[in-house]
Amino acid sequence: MKLGKVVVVGVGLIGGSCALALKRAGCVGEVVGVGRTQANLDIAVARAVIDRACTLDADWTRELADADVVLVAAPVAQFPSLFVAMAGALGTRTIVTDAGSTKQDVIDAAAGAFGPALPRFVPGHPIAGTEHTGAAAAFPSLFEGRNVILTPIAETDPGATERVATLWQACGARVTTLDATRHDAVFAAVSHLPHVLAFTLVAELAARPDAATYFDHAASGFRDFTRIAAGSPEMWRDIALANRDALLAEIDGYAEALAAARALIAEGDGEALAALFAEASRARRAWEAARRQPVVEDKG
Amino acid sequence: MKLGKVVVVGVGLIGGSCALALKRAGCVGEVVGVGRTQANLDIAVARAVIDRACTLDADWTRELADADVVLVAAPVAQFPSLFVAMAGALGTRTIVTDAGSTKQDVIDAAAGAFGPALPRFVPGHPIAGTEHTGAAAAFPSLFEGRNVILTPIAETDPGATERVATLWQACGARVTTLDATRHDAVFAAVSHLPHVLAFTLVAELAARPDAATYFDHAASGFRDFTRIAAGSPEMWRDIALANRDALLAEIDGYAEALAAARALIAEGDGEALAALFAEASRARRAWEAARRQPVVEDKG
Repeated sequence: MKLGKVVVVGVGLIGGSCALALKRAGCVGEVVGVGRTQANLDIAVARAVIDRACTLDADWTRELADADVVLVAAPVAQFPSLFVAMAGALGTRTIVTDAGSTKQDVIDAAAGAFGPALPRFVPGHPIAGTEHTGAAAAFPSLFEGRNVILTPIAETDPGATERVATLWQACGARVTTLDATRHDAVFAAVSHLPHVLAFTLVAELAARPDAATYFDHAASGFRDFTRIAAGSPEMWRDIALANRDALLAEIDGYAEALAAARALIAEGDGEALAALFAEASRARRAWEAARRQPVVEDKG
Repeated sequence: MKLGKVVVVGVGLIGGSCALALKRAGCVGEVVGVGRTQANLDIAVARAVIDRACTLDADWTRELADADVVLVAAPVAQFPSLFVAMAGALGTRTIVTDAGSTKQDVIDAAAGAFGPALPRFVPGHPIAGTEHTGAAAAFPSLFEGRNVILTPIAETDPGATERVATLWQACGARVTTLDATRHDAVFAAVSHLPHVLAFTLVAELAARPDAATYFDHAASGFRDFTRIAAGSPEMWRDIALANRDALLAEIDGYAEALAAARALIAEGDGEALAALFAEASRARRAWEAARRQPVVEDKG
């Protein structure tokens, strides 16, 4: 694959690392970075993450007409207005893809904005990240061995999906496809729910008048269980609201399961409680054993 | 400190490591190990964790009359019957301490069993452990820099508490005291509740007909959040039931907090949701930053 021009909207860890990976693979002629702040774009140019930069308050959409691919890797809450701004400026061959953590809401925004360009929009979710952000944190091997999930819709041109898949494979990623609704349901369960649970636990403890005593006695179980509660409040707020319906369903299912576990403890039903814990322990050990690759960072 | 004879009841990771640490510090003349299985005791003798061994179905209590300290480090569910067996056989100077993860239930069992020897019982909780178990896993530096919490009661002889504190300090631990009820409430919140939450999440996912799809997409957030769900089902069953009242109170408080977070998501109140997540993120980062020592393993 050889792309002439790629436009990255949002030159952060994900967008910047994708640009670096494509450059390293020799797959791209020119990368233009678009972003909110000049400071981050300056870093991106200085690090050769991008070749040219354009802020969102300049006339950035004129860069789209001759672009082969536009990767939208900005915060998801900005997607709807970005899509509206992009729609009329896309070239007739330009493919658009994104890196959002939720997919149905992104598809809804795309369907409302892109009109005849909708078949060339390929919704995507690279499952990669670190705790660092911004162009300064980007590195070309971020996606090596990581999963990228594409969630094309009925309207999507299969050729566009294939092209985006090839782009991510050039970055070293494994590409799979999944129905968007299914994607959102799965990530509500294995990622968004755990984040809400961890945020809730730590916020509840922190609100106690004697919080210090609790935190003083917290050890490694607490450390690992709550690591994700240190995540970005804004990003996780956006994800929770973007995937609201699936997340609410998961919270309700979880609350029911917790009430059932509570009942076993209240009744002193040691046998059933041990069976419940044993099923979890078995499944968790099997999951760990089945992972051949080192576990990837979960940016959302 | 120089102890003549120490009896360790339950020569597992905790009891065995304490024995090794005391030996390394030159603080003990002889260590007698008592346990359920001959196989584990054979390993303990072969590794010089203990000097002599006695199984629980032999006449082990005759070892207690001339013991300076008895450390009960067996599974907590066995404490009541062990205490009853020990009570009449203790020497008039013998101090008894334990390594149980919950304290009020252990104190209740001791108060019911020890009679006039109760002042020489010092309830304790070493906050240390690894994922390995048995005498084979014991090592002398397990307690270095770790916390040991003693929860003496009104009847406890302060001299006995001081002696047990010195014993753990000789193992390299930092010793603090805490009211037993307070201990159980604090650990219900920062350890027992997170375990129940993690076990519940994984068991609920594993019970789904399409569990594999969910587990296939789980990444590092899930990995850390659920690490404690791989723990021993029997041990955590025992802890949950031993600390039932405090744990139920924590579950109820948590369920309320989760319902409140759910309401913010359902109402789409992004500002309040971001504020909740931000408070958790701030507290979690402050906790991590305040920890000068590497975080200790939390065995229960």
